[in-house]
Parts: sequence; C-alpha cells; structure tokens
Amino acid sequence: MRITTVGLDADDTLWHNETIFRLTQDRLRALMADIAPPETLNATLAEVEKRNLRLYGYGVKGFTLSMIETAMELTGANPPGRLIAEILAAGREMLGHPVEPLPGVEQALAELDGYRLVLITKGDLLHQEQKLAASGLGDLFAAVEIVSEKDTGAYRRVFDRHGTGAAEAVMCGNSMRSDILPALEAGCWGAYIPYHITWAHEVAEPPGDHARFVELRSISELPAWVRGLN
Amino acid sequence: MRITTVGLDADDTLWHNETIFRLTQDRLRALMADIAPPETLNATLAEVEKRNLRLYGYGVKGFTLSMIETAMELTGANPPGRLIAEILAAGREMLGHPVEPLPGVEQALAELDGYRLVLITKGDLLHQEQKLAASGLGDLFAAVEIVSEKDTGAYRRVFDRHGTGAAEAVMCGNSMRSDILPALEAGCWGAYIPYHITWAHEVAEPPGDHARFVELRSISELPAWVRGLN
Repeated sequence: MRITTVGLDADDTLWHNETIFRLTQDRLRALMADIAPPETLNATLAEVEKRNLRLYGYGVKGFTLSMIETAMELTGANPPGRLIAEILAAGREMLGHPVEPLPGVEQALAELDGYRLVLITKGDLLHQEQKLAASGLGDLFAAVEIVSEKDTGAYRRVFDRHGTGAAEAVMCGNSMRSDILPALEAGCWGAYIPYHITWAHEVAEPPGDHARFVELRSISELPAWVRGLN
Repeated sequence: MRITTVGLDADDTLWHNETIFRLTQDRLRALMADIAPPETLNATLAEVEKRNLRLYGYGVKGFTLSMIETAMELTGANPPGRLIAEILAAGREMLGHPVEPLPGVEQALAELDGYRLVLITKGDLLHQEQKLAASGLGDLFAAVEIVSEKDTGAYRRVFDRHGTGAAEAVMCGNSMRSDILPALEAGCWGAYIPYHITWAHEVAEPPGDHARFVELRSISELPAWVRGLN
C-alpha cells in the first residue's frame, strides 16, 4: 500500500464554519423574535435553503439570499424597518469573518510533510480563496480545488490531476456525506473527523465496517494514521 | 511560432450574459419607478456593486444581493409590498435562464479542432458549470477553469496546467480588461471580440499597437487567425 496524496476538506476541518452559520441564524431568530417562534424560523429557513440549493449551491451568498427569502415569507412580504438591511449586514460579516486554524491543524499539516496535500472544498469560489489566504495555511498545499459538488467524479478527477489517483490518496474531512462516502466510492481512503455540529444537509450514515475508513477524534491523529498505511 | 492552446472566455463570448444583467436592471428600474428616477437607480446600483465586488466577487448571487441593498437604500430601508420578493425572483430567473451559444460559436470551436480548448471564466462556480452544461459545448473543451479573478497570474497558471505555457496560447474574449490585457501581460496572444454592450467594470483601453493583439469582428474569424499564427 502506497499513499502519496492527502486531500483535506476546509470548512470545519481546518477552520470553523458551521459555527458561524449557526451564530448568524441565532441572530436572525433574535431579529425576528416578535414575528416568528424560533422553531418556525428554523424550519422555514431549512426548507428555503433546501429548495434553493440546486440554484445557489453552497456558501454565504446563497445563505444570505435564503435568509432574506425566509424573512419575506414569514412577514407576508412586509418586513419591518431594517430587517432586510440587518440580514445583508450579517451576510457581509460572515464573508469578512476572521479565519483561524482549528487546534492542531498547523502541526498536523506540518507532520504530513512528504505527502502531497490537496485542499478540496466547496462553496463560493472567492470566499474560499479568501479564507485560505486569511488562514495562513495556503503555502502548505500543493493544490487547491474548489468544486461545486463533492461527488465521486470530483474526487477521481482531483486525485488524478494532483496526485497518483484515488487509490493512493486519503481524503480527510468532517462531512460523512461530502468528504467520506463519495471519496471511498472513488477508491480513496477516508478519515472522518467529526466537528461538534453538522449542517443537516451533510449528515449521512457511516459506511460501517469498511477496510479503507477510519474515524479519528482529532486532526492530530491523522499523520500517524496516514503513515501507518504505507 | 507554435500555438497549441486556445483559451476562451464564456460570458458574452460564447453566450449572452450582460444582456441578461441589463434586462434585469431594466426590470428593477420599472419596479422602483415610483421611488427613484432611472438615473438615480443606475448610479446607486453601480456604486453598491462596486463597493461589494471585493466581498461578493462576480456573478448573479452577488448582483442579486446588491440589487436588494440598492432597494433598501433608495426606500430608506422601507421597501414597499413585494419589491424584495420580486428582486429575489428576478435573481432566480437569471440563474435559470436558458443558455444558447452565440451565432458562429459552435462552428468556430469545431474549426479549432487540433488545438487544446480551455474555457476560462469567472463568476459563481455552480452557475458557470450549469451554463456550460446547458450550452451543450462542454465536450469541446479539454479543460474548464473557473477563477475568482482573471489576472496575469491566473492566465500563467491555467496555460501552464492545461497547455504548453502562455507563449503558445491564444486568449479570446470580449473584455479588454479581463480577457485581453492580463493575458497579453502573461505572454499570450490576445483576440478581442467585442460584444455589443460591456459592463462598466470591464471597460479598458486597448493595448494600441501590440504584436500579439488582434481585434476580430466575430468568433467566426478566430480559427483562421489562430491557424495563421503557426
């Protein structure tokens, strides 16, 4: 067994992301507290997001548009005072949010020296590039691939292009649905590192007893596991 | 002189784009006719777009957010009835708009048989992929690169990765600022094919008397010009 390449997810694997979405959603709930009970807002927003995913894809801009649409629906298209302006401001703040590597990330990436590291992420192209730049981790990666959907074909293409094929690659991330299952299907090894919260859309059943799958408690455990495969 | 690779811009080079933005802006002007004179709306929207470009980048989602912000500004954060919902609907329609190749595109691409064709575009990742799929032109391209900014470094990277370097590549597009000047700077040949309207942000002075620059009247003239370079 030879591993040449390690693919890493970005959001909630290298830095916080879902937390920022949840905090923004908390803020929307507070802004609309007089209009809709929290569970109604949560359910409506989830429904609007799901409906828009095909058109908007992943990322903050689509989320902001879905928050506005939710506000319109719940106010009978009559949003009070500055509600929409507040939502626009919340979206802009998400885009400008500082990016800090999660604990252990820098050291783990340094210990993976000798492997080709490829960042594989989805979301808004510009925003993902800006986050990588702000994280200070950019130089550690041999390649960065921002894709519209993390499916089996995407993993095959990325590891053919930037490595020696999926069979000699590990994919590491916090989303069972986007980072692990399609990567295993493509022939990669999969290292699942849960983040403490997961967006409903990204939840999926683990693959069970799979020879190429491992669940790790932290990214600090990744280098030793990868080296153990060789 | 050897040319191996032809880079092609997508929006307003292969299919209509700016027209759809202008029609949507017309619609916003009509929706807000009682609130703001047309020139005020145009000026405010242009200013908001410019201010947001650094955060939102290019594409329909950012444009939709900027239209909403413009509506908020011009109504004193008190938008009437269904205005915001109408803007959201207009944005969604832009994303779902049918894509048809401009006249001559399919034949020109077919005549460039033997060259490696690379699509190079900016905007929302998912939307650009969807437009390419809808255009039916996807199979003609050896590679597709969706970038956040078309600068000199981007052209160098793309033609290093997908071709034999910038010096053996032609870049063809309708934006002097994004398709031609940085590509010439990177060492490519530049074929400028104006579209009948240009977004203010994309306007730039032509390079004057430049050995590697040509202006063509239509993409139908591209294959003969490229072959003439060899």
